[in-house]
Amino acid sequence: MSAVSTKLFHFGISTDTFDFCKIFQDIKYVCCGGSQKRIVNLARHLADRFPINKPYGFMPENLCKSDRYVMFKVGPVLCVNHGVGQGSVSIMLNELLKLLKLANCMDVIIIRIGTCGGLGLAKGTVVISDSVVNGLLEEHYEMHILGNIHLKPTKLNKTLGNNLLSIAEELKYAAVIGKTLSVNDFYEEQARVDGALCDFTFEEKLNFLNKAYNSGVKNIEMESSCFAAFCCRAGIKAAVICVTLLDRLEGDVLNPNDPFSEWEKRPVEIISRYIEKEYFQIND
Amino acid sequence: MSAVSTKLFHFGISTDTFDFCKIFQDIKYVCCGGSQKRIVNLARHLADRFPINKPYGFMPENLCKSDRYVMFKVGPVLCVNHGVGQGSVSIMLNELLKLLKLANCMDVIIIRIGTCGGLGLAKGTVVISDSVVNGLLEEHYEMHILGNIHLKPTKLNKTLGNNLLSIAEELKYAAVIGKTLSVNDFYEEQARVDGALCDFTFEEKLNFLNKAYNSGVKNIEMESSCFAAFCCRAGIKAAVICVTLLDRLEGDVLNPNDPFSEWEKRPVEIISRYIEKEYFQIND
Repeated sequence: MSAVSTKLFHFGISTDTFDFCKIFQDIKYVCCGGSQKRIVNLARHLADRFPINKPYGFMPENLCKSDRYVMFKVGPVLCVNHGVGQGSVSIMLNELLKLLKLANCMDVIIIRIGTCGGLGLAKGTVVISDSVVNGLLEEHYEMHILGNIHLKPTKLNKTLGNNLLSIAEELKYAAVIGKTLSVNDFYEEQARVDGALCDFTFEEKLNFLNKAYNSGVKNIEMESSCFAAFCCRAGIKAAVICVTLLDRLEGDVLNPNDPFSEWEKRPVEIISRYIEKEYFQIND
Repeated sequence: MSAVSTKLFHFGISTDTFDFCKIFQDIKYVCCGGSQKRIVNLARHLADRFPINKPYGFMPENLCKSDRYVMFKVGPVLCVNHGVGQGSVSIMLNELLKLLKLANCMDVIIIRIGTCGGLGLAKGTVVISDSVVNGLLEEHYEMHILGNIHLKPTKLNKTLGNNLLSIAEELKYAAVIGKTLSVNDFYEEQARVDGALCDFTFEEKLNFLNKAYNSGVKNIEMESSCFAAFCCRAGIKAAVICVTLLDRLEGDVLNPNDPFSEWEKRPVEIISRYIEKEYFQIND
């Protein structure tokens, strides 16, 4: 343990109470997503599925001691939620990378799973992002550091993306690789007209979504811009796999009769198989 | 109830299951803050304190049916958390305003309470924001709507701010009104050198913080920019009251011996008294 205490403030853990090296040094994968409940379910699923040492009657425990995030360790996989939007993702990734450095982890792969709106794709399609554009359809993430504008690249790892696509195809999921539009709002910045405030027309909205579609955008969400920029800068191999819950060119509102819980399992199934093959050497 | 169903997706409630008018029409105040636990505690505190009809043995119930936000109703006050960062605040405010409109609420006041870093102030000082600047020290909030940049004003209500300051002074709290610097990151954008990534020196950091201080910035946090811009546009009387946990000109790390829980009660005490005086006509 380091002689100087390091506190991961928003995780609520510190080197005073945790031996990071001992606990986390075997971490090879981090799987993250927005909602706490989704991450709880992911951790339980992986714990049941992977051939790890888990006594009967035990389940993964939340390692975070704050109420901001949840974090579970399942063998070589750390499952963490990142909340909603760029600011929340940014804090999680900073504290996660500090944790991985304190634990001397090397070559860790980070995968974000989530749901999204699709553009011109059948609902339930898996989208693997190769790069991320902002609300101006520019391929970078803007940060304001010490009063200056910094534009950070948002490319994601090509080989990892292709490997995940192969698994999606093996599983017979509709799946594509493409650009993701990532903005810091669910309503106006995503061209929804049904927020509380909206100054544009339905026609203007469709024009913008078509423009995005024609520039290669496959899906829209709220976190990949910050996620991709951070991982790019940190030199971390990273991927984003989201499943589309609707086609934004056709509408904005979910159809309650659609099998969302089935679709949401697709990114989970893909990363489970990926880790099984690569780490546990389990093949069909 | 409206004939057409309206779903507040991230609150997990809809007009199909809730009669918004019946349940929410007496709402006069919304109090919000980042953490779920802080909002739970706030709701319980207000329920104990206000002269409302609350049978013995009952406590406020979380009305949200998703795991994204929590929401409690205590007489005329709705207590909601908004999570971390601008994206999370933006969703909460959109769905909150839709809720208030569906319930035909008029002249609702929205107050955000929180903690922050101070600039040149004694720790534990209450800062009431009169306007909010971004990481470039510019007084607006930038949105990207349909591919265009929109700069939204971030002024907060002057009269409300002054009334809250008077109460802070009655309570003998150290308190000021001033500009708030609000960015979408806890580490680099707040000029912290202890994040996982940092390309600037300690000296450059201090130069920026001093520049902010000299331009009238009193405190730094992550949500007021989006909050002020939204309320400004919507014509809602709004305030932000935060308490400083440290002086960023002196350091970045909290001193664990400081009485944080005592300080965090200050914004709560101020809004409790404000509502008692204005709504319940209770004076000392």
